[in-house]
Amino acid sequence: MGKETVKIGLVGCGVVGAGLVALLGEKRDALRAQWGFDFKLCFVSDYARGTLVSPDGLDTSAIVGALARDGNLHSISGVRKEPVPLGDLLKEMPVDFVCDATPTNYETGQPSLGILRAALENGANAVTCSKGGVGKDLAGLKKIAQEKGVALRFESSVLSGTPLIDLVRGPLAGCDISRVQGIVNGTTNYILTKMEEGMAYDTALAEAQRLGYAETDPTGDVEGFDAAVKVCIMAGEFFGAHLAIGDVDRTGITKITTADIERAKSGGKRIKLIAGVDRTGTGVSGYVRPTEVDAAHPLAGVSGVTNAVSITTDNLGEITIIGPGAGARETAQGILSDMLEIAGR
Amino acid sequence: MGKETVKIGLVGCGVVGAGLVALLGEKRDALRAQWGFDFKLCFVSDYARGTLVSPDGLDTSAIVGALARDGNLHSISGVRKEPVPLGDLLKEMPVDFVCDATPTNYETGQPSLGILRAALENGANAVTCSKGGVGKDLAGLKKIAQEKGVALRFESSVLSGTPLIDLVRGPLAGCDISRVQGIVNGTTNYILTKMEEGMAYDTALAEAQRLGYAETDPTGDVEGFDAAVKVCIMAGEFFGAHLAIGDVDRTGITKITTADIERAKSGGKRIKLIAGVDRTGTGVSGYVRPTEVDAAHPLAGVSGVTNAVSITTDNLGEITIIGPGAGARETAQGILSDMLEIAGR
Repeated sequence: MGKETVKIGLVGCGVVGAGLVALLGEKRDALRAQWGFDFKLCFVSDYARGTLVSPDGLDTSAIVGALARDGNLHSISGVRKEPVPLGDLLKEMPVDFVCDATPTNYETGQPSLGILRAALENGANAVTCSKGGVGKDLAGLKKIAQEKGVALRFESSVLSGTPLIDLVRGPLAGCDISRVQGIVNGTTNYILTKMEEGMAYDTALAEAQRLGYAETDPTGDVEGFDAAVKVCIMAGEFFGAHLAIGDVDRTGITKITTADIERAKSGGKRIKLIAGVDRTGTGVSGYVRPTEVDAAHPLAGVSGVTNAVSITTDNLGEITIIGPGAGARETAQGILSDMLEIAGR
Repeated sequence: MGKETVKIGLVGCGVVGAGLVALLGEKRDALRAQWGFDFKLCFVSDYARGTLVSPDGLDTSAIVGALARDGNLHSISGVRKEPVPLGDLLKEMPVDFVCDATPTNYETGQPSLGILRAALENGANAVTCSKGGVGKDLAGLKKIAQEKGVALRFESSVLSGTPLIDLVRGPLAGCDISRVQGIVNGTTNYILTKMEEGMAYDTALAEAQRLGYAETDPTGDVEGFDAAVKVCIMAGEFFGAHLAIGDVDRTGITKITTADIERAKSGGKRIKLIAGVDRTGTGVSGYVRPTEVDAAHPLAGVSGVTNAVSITTDNLGEITIIGPGAGARETAQGILSDMLEIAGR
């Protein structure tokens, strides 16, 4: 982009949004020194928590403080408490990047889908960690981005900031990919790990809830919906194929018993909730299913909330990436690296 | 670069060089369709095997065929059997990329160092899979590249084409890295894996030699020189620090016994030749040493000739990449992705 000041707008001020604001504040000097960019946070906007706008750049520590203290931005001078549509905001305060850190609705893809469309249509680059929009209509969003001459990036929508999505355009460029599969949901991997230690499913789930890994309603994780929408994203980015969440052959972990796990273990295997996309003769097949993974395979060694994905290519055989799959800072890192990649060109 | 025809010159026509020529031929149509580039191989040059030049692009299958059949290019019409200095070649036939696929001399860094310098000084982007030049003087080469406004890339100098080096500029951009360590030599990992299966060191080494993993003189691998030069490369790229190979605290695997391995195993550990760089209070420390790795760590699960590196960062904690560390096609993939990354900008 060749700009020295890069203007950012953030939509969604939950845990990840707050993490991104904190990271931008913490890294400001280092980024300026290393990359020559001055990242300026020109608006933050959250449907419930309030909207702040400043052409000169907002005070990141005031925002982080208010969110930590009050859970919203209402105490900060100039806050608008009524929701502000992104299109209006972008007309008032144009930015180079809109960062979408809103929660995911697996069925509708909203609010992420609308935010990304509005960002791209208004000529801003869009970076998202939400699985909603890119899981629902990646091709449609890419089309808008291309028409408008801006970029769409979503490294942290799968495996948070652990390198995965951006590998396709980078080190895997030139490879023909035949399979992408892995452990893309930390909650279920944590539960399965605890069950291997002898805990019953219900106890392990309760433990995951207590630690904040699982929601009060754990359906999205344990029935494989979260993994399935990530399958849709991987199908789109790695294979250029559209899968709706309903196209994914999906089985969760609710029927897995400690007896199943013991039986697998006695055969030298570990049960993992494997989410994947395979290239087939006619297109792609997407799936989420408990799978007995051979102990010698890198995915078998992945325990707790850690995530991992193996990619099979013609030029490299199989490579595997292991790393965090969630976390505010980890996810913010994916957003930051996506912005640096675009801003640095 | 915005060019439709990308001109390539290749120096070094051994196994990897031949692999790159084959890959460029095989992928020509796919690259044109996906990236819009026409990769044209305008020269290949090897000190012993001969030099071919064509402004219109050489016949890749003729080259692959001659190398497979004769081990040289002497049968191809127009071949020059006397060595041609790269500087002269570049004046005669300017190219966008010089690919260096020459063998590595750990001490001098030659011939790679001279090739990369000549390429950059003549205004060509330089891509290398050799550890020689970038292991010896990465900072000096980067300085020339910057002065000349061209790029230097070396993804496949460590872990062949498995994504590692390019992660720093890509998905890890914005991270502060505190440690990089892993299994970067397949030969020694193969020997250690066989020793775990009960084979004595000498038998395992002989087996590795029979399979072509180890050289007749295995010193470079088993005494850790190959891993140490990779440590120098990682120190330079991940930490911006210069380490000479002699600065690396290096212990090979020749003193490891099956008893050591058994003792580690009984403690739930595996002995791996770990090569790494740690940030210290005053700079960096580089090392290659047999290490008892806890069985739960991703590096412990890496068997045979597979390689793996774990990177510890402030924003992501630890991530691990596992994949091939050698192979003609795997290494050529790293060169190809480096070229695509630069040509695609």
